[in-house]
Parts: sequence; C-alpha cells; structure tokens
Amino acid sequence: MHDLDHYSALAAEALAAVGLHGQPDGLYEPVRYIMALGGKRLRPAMALAACELCGGDPKVAYGPAAGLELFHNFTLLHDDIMDAAPIRRGQPTVHVRWDANRAILSGDTMFALAGRSLLDTPTDAIPELLRLFFDTAVEVCEGQQMDMDFEHRDDVSVEEYLEMIRLKTAVLIAASLRTGALVARAGEPLCRELYAFGIAAGMAFQLQDDYLDTFGDERTFGKQSGGDITANKKTFLYLKALELAEPSHKERLLQHYQSQPLDPSEKILEVSSIFRALDIPSEVRGLMQDYHEQAMKHLAMIEAARGPSPALQEFARKVMVRER
Amino acid sequence: MHDLDHYSALAAEALAAVGLHGQPDGLYEPVRYIMALGGKRLRPAMALAACELCGGDPKVAYGPAAGLELFHNFTLLHDDIMDAAPIRRGQPTVHVRWDANRAILSGDTMFALAGRSLLDTPTDAIPELLRLFFDTAVEVCEGQQMDMDFEHRDDVSVEEYLEMIRLKTAVLIAASLRTGALVARAGEPLCRELYAFGIAAGMAFQLQDDYLDTFGDERTFGKQSGGDITANKKTFLYLKALELAEPSHKERLLQHYQSQPLDPSEKILEVSSIFRALDIPSEVRGLMQDYHEQAMKHLAMIEAARGPSPALQEFARKVMVRER
Repeated sequence: MHDLDHYSALAAEALAAVGLHGQPDGLYEPVRYIMALGGKRLRPAMALAACELCGGDPKVAYGPAAGLELFHNFTLLHDDIMDAAPIRRGQPTVHVRWDANRAILSGDTMFALAGRSLLDTPTDAIPELLRLFFDTAVEVCEGQQMDMDFEHRDDVSVEEYLEMIRLKTAVLIAASLRTGALVARAGEPLCRELYAFGIAAGMAFQLQDDYLDTFGDERTFGKQSGGDITANKKTFLYLKALELAEPSHKERLLQHYQSQPLDPSEKILEVSSIFRALDIPSEVRGLMQDYHEQAMKHLAMIEAARGPSPALQEFARKVMVRER
Repeated sequence: MHDLDHYSALAAEALAAVGLHGQPDGLYEPVRYIMALGGKRLRPAMALAACELCGGDPKVAYGPAAGLELFHNFTLLHDDIMDAAPIRRGQPTVHVRWDANRAILSGDTMFALAGRSLLDTPTDAIPELLRLFFDTAVEVCEGQQMDMDFEHRDDVSVEEYLEMIRLKTAVLIAASLRTGALVARAGEPLCRELYAFGIAAGMAFQLQDDYLDTFGDERTFGKQSGGDITANKKTFLYLKALELAEPSHKERLLQHYQSQPLDPSEKILEVSSIFRALDIPSEVRGLMQDYHEQAMKHLAMIEAARGPSPALQEFARKVMVRER
C-alpha cells in the first residue's frame, strides 16, 4: 500500500482522462478553468486508496474518483456565487472572471459530468455507487443551506454547527472512501468502517480549517488569517466562545459580529484575543483530538481486516492541527 | 393502451410519491413551490406511456418518470435565474419569491433528488438509465449555453437555432420516452425509434411554442403574445425572417432587435407584421409539418411493433399548430 502523494498523483491521472472539451466552448471553458486551479485532490485520492486497500485495482475506480472531484469542484463553484467570493486559490472565481450565469450553468454541467464519470467503471456496483452519490449530493446541499441560514440566525448551537460541517464537508470525504470500497466490491462492514473513518477525519479536517483560518500562520497556511472573523462566520470557534464567555466578552463578540469594518484588522485582533482568553484554541484542538481518536479507532478496524494503509494514516495525521 | 390524460394522471401520482420534505425546510420549500406550480407533466407521461407500450408495468417507471420531471423543473428554475424571468406559470419565480442563492441551491438539490428518483425502480437497466440521464443533462446545459450565446451574436443561423432547441428541449422529451422503454427492457431498435420520435415531436413542440408566442391567441394560449419579440429572442421566426427579408425589412428587424422600449406594443406590432409580410407563419408551419411527418414515420414503426399508442399519437397531434 502507498502513501497519500501516490494516490494524489493517481487522482490527477484519473482527472486528466476526463474529457472537458465539449461544445459550446463557452460552457466548458469555466469547467477547465476551475479544474485547473488544482487542490489536494483529497476526495479522489481517498477513493483510490480505499479501492486498493479493499483489494481492487485503483484503475477501476478512476472514473468514480474523477467524478467525486468534479462534483466537489461543482459545489465550490456554486458556493462561491452564493458567498460572493471573489478569489479561489489565488485566482478570480468563475462568476467574477465570467459572470453569475456562466457560473451557474457550468456548475450544473459539472454535476452532470461528475455523474457521467461515476458510471465510467466496469463494476456491477453502479446502482449502489449512484445512490451514495445522490444521497451525498442532497446532504451537501442541505449543509450549504444550513450554513446560509446561520448567517441570519443568532441562536446557532455548537451541535447545529457540527451537523452543518458533517453535511457540508465530512459526508463527501466519507462517500469517497465508500465509493472506492464499493468499486472493489468490499463487504458492507468494511464499507461502513471506511465511511465512519471518513466522517470522523472529515470533521477534524473542517475544524482544522476553522482553526487555521483564525490561528494559522499566514506564511505556511497560504491565506490571510481572520477571513472567517471578517465575514462574521459562525464557526465552532465563535459559537464555543459565545457559550463560554462572561457577559462583557459576549457583548463584544456580538457587537463585532454585527460589524463589517472596511479595515478588519482591529476586529480580527480583538476577536482572536477574546478567543485566546477563553482558551478556544485548546477547545478546538480538544474536539479535533476526539474526532481524530474516533477516526483512528475505525482505521484500526480497517487495518485489522486489510493491513496497513499509509495513505489513510497520513490523512488522519494531517487533519490534526499543526502546533506553532 | 391509454390516452395522454391517463398518463398525465399517473405522472401526477408518481410525483406525489416523491418525498420533498427534508431539512432544512428553507431548502425544500422552493422545491415544493416550483413542483406545485403544475404543468403538463409531459415528460413523465411520455416515460410512462412508453413503458406500458413496451410491455412494462408503468408503476415500475414511477421513480424514473418523477425524476425526469424533477430534472425538467430544475432546469426551469436555473433558466429563470439566468433569464431574470420574474414570472413562471402566473406566479413569482423562485429567485424573485426568495432570492438567487436559494434558487441556485434548491435547483442543485432538485438535480440530486431527480437522480435519486431515477434509481427508484426495480430494474437492472439502471446503468443505462443513468448514462442516458447524465448525457441528456449535459446536452440540456449545452443547449442553454447556446441560447445565452445567441443573445450576444448577430450571425446565428437557422441551423444553429434548430440544434439549440434540439439540445435544450427535444433531447429531454426523447430521453423520457427512451427511459420508459429501458425500464420495460425493450430492445435497442424500439428504444431508438422512440427516441427518434421524441426528437422529431420535441422539435415541432418547441417550434409551436415559438409560433404561439408571437401568433398565438392570448386567450387560449394563456400568456401575452410577443414575449420573444420583446426580449429580442432569436427564434426561428426572427432568423428565418432575416434570411428572407429584403434590405429595408432586414434593417427594421435589426433595429428593433437592438431596442428595449418600455412599452413594447408598437415594436411587437411592427415586427409581427414584417413576419407576416414575409410569410413566416407558413414557414414555421411548414417546418413543423416536416418534423410532424418524421415523428409519424417513427410512430408507425413503433406501432407496427407494439400496437397503437393513443398517447403518443395525441402528443404528435398536439404539437401541430392550432390554426386560428
């Protein structure tokens, strides 16, 4: 069994095999653009690693793996419209580079291309694969709606937040692992363990993202710290802080999260220092640790059945926060 | 075999069986809203009629039939955003009633729900069903992009227009018929004839829509005449008129199609009188007649194999223009 880089390279190979050159060109140009922005290709890498771990030839999972990455990028494309995000991976987002209509329609096309790619596998597991795909797609939409609803609500609980990131982020990672296992015709118990591993690791993955957005080192993390605070995003950090804060801190947090200053640097500074005062960094790390341990328990079951998986171990390790 | 009304009623039954009550409610409310606006349910009716004609129990096609209607309504929802259309079937469109974000995301959800519904059939034809579904979805997107491209182009040919409506309208009707046949496990020759019937009838169906938009009787057609002219839509009528017009008429048409008067009544009057002067109504009717004859040829093959189909006959008859 191989490491994560190996499967990321295979994922790139799988994606390169997908035809994105239909007509009219105006429809496919944004598709090629967003796919060329890159990314870790985590979801297809997980699908390919799970497939090989379950005894399948990863090549058999190329179509489904590429389909999962196309689907993931479709959700990014549409989320960027909904969030009015100007930049993705250092480049203008599709709705900025072209326009919202082009972004809507090329996103829709990517959803269809994703499904078509999922069918591109010589296995009799296609009905199960597609059921998982559509169920997951519905859940991802539900997660995105919850996220948008949170913007207008002031009574979001930590539990609701965790359910939102489970739907918006974790289920697709879990579904990718299960897809690889299904293609390899693994039994249901193994499929279930891989899915559960993906959920737990995916939760830690998103919490790490939230943590790094506020406490990450800009030089190593690559994007400016404080984006979530600037956007008044109700992340675990904020919700947990509200839960723990005494009245004066709570008041300040609520005030800040109703403001949109042109220069957010002071706001970021004060909010993150309140977070630190409330020991939020160790709250997040503690919760991530919990999910990490859950993931490792499932991984132990998986490895007991199928032998060691350096790629899954590496993913589980990477989602733990890098201390500074 | 039954008439079209019978299959429309079955289609309504099939749709009523689809669960549209997930959480968060904010995501599913627009889905229920657009599905409740009604419509002829032509696509699922065609799927159910084809299934029974090919010897299948229509109940077996309920899931796929409902999925096709969900997909069709998803395309309407997203097209309405892209066209900035305020009204659909006499009611505010989803992006007006709620907002564009809600319309994007509930549309995405409908695409996923459509796919899930397509899987809801006890047949081993699922891989073929889904391949057809995704291929068709890609084509419908390509057609919509062509339609949007036409807005900014002044060199659109009649041939390109016909290719656009084939992709945007005809392929989904054809795919619905083929879906019903696949569910009934019909052989490839019969599937192919049904698909070809759907393409020809679907072309006539769209041309009828274009014809009625300009020359329809408002009282019987139900929407105001001249919408396409008001919106400067490059329909067959306009493109054929440009082809046939001498310089002075051509000049007037081009001028009108660069204007957006607040009160479009004079523009509608002049453009439609130019159309009449160029005998465009009989040009459209002639082309519709050609497609109708193609459809009837395929229907003759189908009925020779499977006996008479009042529902398909009725559809083919209905797409012919009603003379006034």
